[in-house]
Amino acid sequence: MKLYGYFRSSAAFRVRIALNLKKLDYESAFIHLRRGDQRQPGFRGVNPQGLVPALETDGTVLLQSLPIIEYLDETHPSPPLLPSNPQDRARVRALAAVVACDIHPINNLRVLRYLHRPLGHDETAVETWYNHWITEGFGALEQLLAGDARTGAFCHGDAPGLADIALVPQVFNAYRYRTLELTPYPTILRIYQTCLKLDAFAAAHPDRQPDHEA
Amino acid sequence: MKLYGYFRSSAAFRVRIALNLKKLDYESAFIHLRRGDQRQPGFRGVNPQGLVPALETDGTVLLQSLPIIEYLDETHPSPPLLPSNPQDRARVRALAAVVACDIHPINNLRVLRYLHRPLGHDETAVETWYNHWITEGFGALEQLLAGDARTGAFCHGDAPGLADIALVPQVFNAYRYRTLELTPYPTILRIYQTCLKLDAFAAAHPDRQPDHEA
Repeated sequence: MKLYGYFRSSAAFRVRIALNLKKLDYESAFIHLRRGDQRQPGFRGVNPQGLVPALETDGTVLLQSLPIIEYLDETHPSPPLLPSNPQDRARVRALAAVVACDIHPINNLRVLRYLHRPLGHDETAVETWYNHWITEGFGALEQLLAGDARTGAFCHGDAPGLADIALVPQVFNAYRYRTLELTPYPTILRIYQTCLKLDAFAAAHPDRQPDHEA
Repeated sequence: MKLYGYFRSSAAFRVRIALNLKKLDYESAFIHLRRGDQRQPGFRGVNPQGLVPALETDGTVLLQSLPIIEYLDETHPSPPLLPSNPQDRARVRALAAVVACDIHPINNLRVLRYLHRPLGHDETAVETWYNHWITEGFGALEQLLAGDARTGAFCHGDAPGLADIALVPQVFNAYRYRTLELTPYPTILRIYQTCLKLDAFAAAHPDRQPDHEA
């Protein structure tokens, strides 16, 4: 398997965690998003969207982080990343989707760049935008986690799964803008700290990737 | 089952299609997003995110359209909305995610409103934004569909599934802004037209909902 990623992409970070939890070996191709590697014809041939991650496996290319992780879970069922009961699976997928659909895409590099140019906003306005969507999403997520007895050491029960895989990169991103106060989200922060103590999460961290830059 | 929705919400539109394809009866609660019903405490108790859809079933509330649809597919397997092979399932989920993660959230009502206020953009700038993200997403989607032999009458083969369910509401939205030229996306348009000929899609259309407004 070959993972096309970028150390700072939180969607690629998710797939790295899943690969590590499944103890799967993989080769890496580093697509430098700030330099624009994703817009080169070579990579557009891999993913016409020009986004990472993409996972090459068994002669095909899989796109989109959550579908890739569901694929890994279906083809390598142990340890499971989703519970067995349909209602619980729906809960875990929804927690992941709050991050993957309602926070992350709006704060993605390409969107922040569009706010700078052509829209002409300065760093402060972009940071306010960024913090606004995290605040909206984390407020709901905190309630969904703190108010549900199914939340355990992790988002769902006492083993890490799909929701934790989505949550951790988003919290990491939130920390990058120091102006955002995260104390209103104690459950989110507790789970984040718990996850980072696991090798699978720690080894997937942006700071530990070969293409990491300060 | 009770679906909290809004005629114009494309995420609620998706769930309506899935319920229809599965031939499941449901009750409707209409949350008027333009009037702000989603921010009332009553609905925040159903979904702390203040977004639709939400599906009440078996004493629990399920959130997020794609997780809700996966739940419906797991609990009512016929007709299937995903193929059986893991690689094909990953493809269908990725096609759905291109819409649900990379187009729709950036063009959602709450985001367009934020561009108006506090950011102060006029209708033209907002429309340009809207069209930009559809163009980015549809360009990639057209390639992923037209360039893959697994595409059939529908996004994947000759039966409608999760990818079509995500695609149709997005094309409907794209048509709402008349400035967007959709002829560069012949495969997308062909599948859209094919879907709308099916009762399950036609009956889920915003124009046919009891809460529809001109």
